[in-house]
Amino acid sequence: MKPAQENDPVLLIGPRNKRFIVYLKAGDQLHTHMGIIAHDAIIGKPLGREILSHLKKPFLVLEPSADDLIVQLPRKGQIVYPKEAGFALLRMNIHSGKRVIEAGTGCGGFTLAISRSVAPEGRVYSYEIRPDMQAVAKKNLEKLGLDSWVEFKIRDIAEGFDETDVDAVFLDLRTPWDFLAQVQDALKPGGFFGSLLPTTNQVSRLVQSLEHNNFADTEVLEILQRNYKPVPDRLRPTDVMVGHTGYLVFSRKISRNNIGVSTADYQEEALS
Amino acid sequence: MKPAQENDPVLLIGPRNKRFIVYLKAGDQLHTHMGIIAHDAIIGKPLGREILSHLKKPFLVLEPSADDLIVQLPRKGQIVYPKEAGFALLRMNIHSGKRVIEAGTGCGGFTLAISRSVAPEGRVYSYEIRPDMQAVAKKNLEKLGLDSWVEFKIRDIAEGFDETDVDAVFLDLRTPWDFLAQVQDALKPGGFFGSLLPTTNQVSRLVQSLEHNNFADTEVLEILQRNYKPVPDRLRPTDVMVGHTGYLVFSRKISRNNIGVSTADYQEEALS
Amino acid sequence: MKPAQENDPVLLIGPRNKRFIVYLKAGDQLHTHMGIIAHDAIIGKPLGREILSHLKKPFLVLEPSADDLIVQLPRKGQIVYPKEAGFALLRMNIHSGKRVIEAGTGCGGFTLAISRSVAPEGRVYSYEIRPDMQAVAKKNLEKLGLDSWVEFKIRDIAEGFDETDVDAVFLDLRTPWDFLAQVQDALKPGGFFGSLLPTTNQVSRLVQSLEHNNFADTEVLEILQRNYKPVPDRLRPTDVMVGHTGYLVFSRKISRNNIGVSTADYQEEALS
Amino acid sequence: MKPAQENDPVLLIGPRNKRFIVYLKAGDQLHTHMGIIAHDAIIGKPLGREILSHLKKPFLVLEPSADDLIVQLPRKGQIVYPKEAGFALLRMNIHSGKRVIEAGTGCGGFTLAISRSVAPEGRVYSYEIRPDMQAVAKKNLEKLGLDSWVEFKIRDIAEGFDETDVDAVFLDLRTPWDFLAQVQDALKPGGFFGSLLPTTNQVSRLVQSLEHNNFADTEVLEILQRNYKPVPDRLRPTDVMVGHTGYLVFSRKISRNNIGVSTADYQEEALS
Repeated sequence: MKPAQENDPVLLIGPRNKRFIVYLKAGDQLHTHMGIIAHDAIIGKPLGREILSHLKKPFLVLEPSADDLIVQLPRKGQIVYPKEAGFALLRMNIHSGKRVIEAGTGCGGFTLAISRSVAPEGRVYSYEIRPDMQAVAKKNLEKLGLDSWVEFKIRDIAEGFDETDVDAVFLDLRTPWDFLAQVQDALKPGGFFGSLLPTTNQVSRLVQSLEHNNFADTEVLEILQRNYKPVPDRLRPTDVMVGHTGYLVFSRKISRNNIGVSTADYQEEALS
Repeated sequence: MKPAQENDPVLLIGPRNKRFIVYLKAGDQLHTHMGIIAHDAIIGKPLGREILSHLKKPFLVLEPSADDLIVQLPRKGQIVYPKEAGFALLRMNIHSGKRVIEAGTGCGGFTLAISRSVAPEGRVYSYEIRPDMQAVAKKNLEKLGLDSWVEFKIRDIAEGFDETDVDAVFLDLRTPWDFLAQVQDALKPGGFFGSLLPTTNQVSRLVQSLEHNNFADTEVLEILQRNYKPVPDRLRPTDVMVGHTGYLVFSRKISRNNIGVSTADYQEEALS
Repeated sequence: MKPAQENDPVLLIGPRNKRFIVYLKAGDQLHTHMGIIAHDAIIGKPLGREILSHLKKPFLVLEPSADDLIVQLPRKGQIVYPKEAGFALLRMNIHSGKRVIEAGTGCGGFTLAISRSVAPEGRVYSYEIRPDMQAVAKKNLEKLGLDSWVEFKIRDIAEGFDETDVDAVFLDLRTPWDFLAQVQDALKPGGFFGSLLPTTNQVSRLVQSLEHNNFADTEVLEILQRNYKPVPDRLRPTDVMVGHTGYLVFSRKISRNNIGVSTADYQEEALS
Repeated sequence: MKPAQENDPVLLIGPRNKRFIVYLKAGDQLHTHMGIIAHDAIIGKPLGREILSHLKKPFLVLEPSADDLIVQLPRKGQIVYPKEAGFALLRMNIHSGKRVIEAGTGCGGFTLAISRSVAPEGRVYSYEIRPDMQAVAKKNLEKLGLDSWVEFKIRDIAEGFDETDVDAVFLDLRTPWDFLAQVQDALKPGGFFGSLLPTTNQVSRLVQSLEHNNFADTEVLEILQRNYKPVPDRLRPTDVMVGHTGYLVFSRKISRNNIGVSTADYQEEALS
């Protein structure tokens, strides 16, 4: 149990479950509708306790989880939510020592999850076409000290990836089917491909392209999260839930050896 | 791209999506309804390709993902599915270097996921009351070379855990509310608590106990996985899906400092 | 195709899917942010067309469905949504000629659905403890001309129902387990019982009471509605959905004849 | 409470929730793995009670609900499940007195639900291209005495419907977009159109065709049913659930009057 230090990310939870992520800095203050909290009241002391704002409102001071960090990242557009990120990491076998490409970087939410998983021996290669977007992600990762495991690159991936023989490639962009040749060049044989797509039309198009580009074992799925009100004697789901984030598509790079087997043969049973 | 070696786990996918996990051993054979495959045909050669069984049936030879490994583990009773495991890892901030307690070990599916996440610098302490159950899990982890990061213990956890100041505790057993004092003793302040429970009655009881035992930020949720038939021009969910595995409950250990704030204050907004 | 007449309910759909239910009255006007529409522009003319507001904004003029009417009813508290109402009607065998009790009346949404189903030969007996609530429902049903099939009663149903041998009883109130004796007195043998409850704790308690009160074939279920954005080339679910309305519980009144069979015997398979 | 009579449909529920629908006939017997039950033991006696098979196994004798009847119908291919049927009836405003076209008839499950709803003053026109299929449906409806409200027709609906100015048309067939002109000819202005489609590709295609054929207020949705094990102290969803039946598409026939408003204008808000 080491005390909170400068630059540590801290999760503050105020009344009515208002949640704030701050990076500790001597002299800084968090201003909220429920009062001001001085970072100095946190630095050097243990987490996992309550403190009061200047308005005497109680706040929990906690280590933020990856879930907290991802959900609280400043967002531009769609993010890869923890419900999908967590599943994708296991599904694409991303763990310590693996080398993984992602494109686009976006605001860095999934970069955060991947980089923590491959550390300390692996590496993330994160491509993005928009410099402004990646600048935000880079800053987010730097504040968490995770940038040591990430190589950020500004690139139109139509030009290809620099890496070869990587363990996994995840495409979080609009037209993943346009870049499957580049993905093939970068992936090791049997390597994992993944993508997150909001519409059914995109899924159809990607699955079709995968079939024509030496991928196999394609899987399409959704992960839904249903939250409950944590009240013991009135337990029930929340009134409103996130209805959709995206469809996950996974596949594997295959060397076909001219055996002439189509992907469909492998899916027959899965379809029934 | 290193070739497959003896003792490596390999995923074989035959016609109709029949999936097999084998651990390579010179001279061994996999017998299936679609023919026999000699391990020697795989050892020393790259993965990510197709081979034929002696009945000329094609099989994909692949590195298994954590998802494959967990789902294919020999099961006794309920397992922590990848959909829940992946989310729980992010939600409980389990990554390289963390020290995590789980109980019970079960068949080792979640142990596998945690140990890969905390490696190489962290550690899993896995408690189980049934020696026969843990023996299976231990063997499963050994075959994957993951046992170096796990300390297996046969114990009725009512007697307490050996560790203190751990980052997270996950209880996958019937009556987690009976062991919250022990969890408090083992967790660092602010540490993460998680549990997976099949019934609503158990969830109510656990949430109530958490409220009375200095836990806060309690969250209850379900993760649902909906698979689709990966057919581009007839895209649709599968006819049948897993309807329920369990409810996830998460909470944090808090030192309350006699401020006198009840958990309810933190939940009000979450409830609306 | 008869033209719209005074007192007809009409659904007006303006730009951005703004939906209004009006009851036509010569000289009246509908005032919206997108302009004013005179009822006189609708009366005497066919439905199923577009008209313009005084701001030249187009509105569709349509016959409202039961779904529209129920969802647009002025609400006080929880309503029985069409997704549950439609299923319950089939599940409780409510159709023309049936005699049905409901309590409480609420704002009359389910009363509307039942009364249309039992018309013209059946009858709804609608009990409510709050006069103000039932007054609203009564007015809602009168405007639709459905009150001829409904007998509204202000009553604490602890005092019992006036009817006997009815085909079905639906309880939409907090503590249905308190009134099962009264339900037994009112129902015909084998008659249908239904209830809608928001929390799991209520469901547990009701199911337990049903088992002890000569009910059988008890079923608990949820109906979830997932809407899609109707855009052909970007088909996808809406971002947000209703996460929960309530759990439906159905059961049947049984004369047990001292055979000594417990409800559990009938459920064993359903449980697996 | 009238006693059971010959030709009445009866639901028998044996141990382990085995469910049978029989039509009572003097001298007939129901043979099950749990023993034989003579129809004569039921005829002339009240429903809602238990009887014993010749093996002394208890059976509940009940009036079947529309839900029971539909689910137990002999099926050839996809049926319209009660979860969708019930919602569609409210959504398409189908109730007593309405005139409704459906195609195809299938095994008559939805015909059953519609005919009961429009009785006694309305009418169902049920079209089917396969005589063998409709023969089954016709027999199913006759046994229930519902055929008086249904006109069965063997027809390729590409040739058009005989009726005009009907209140609603429901197409349960593979390529509904091929018949929208015929639907327009049959529907009254503002009339309700509905369809049930298993794949996302079909939904996209239908929605696109509706936009180009003077339909408006198009809605796409799914209805999901999640069953729970009705055990009070171990309440939980069933392990397995129906993952998919189909997508419901609803729309309205519109006379556009050359105002030049596109459907998109009406959907903007629904999309956000």
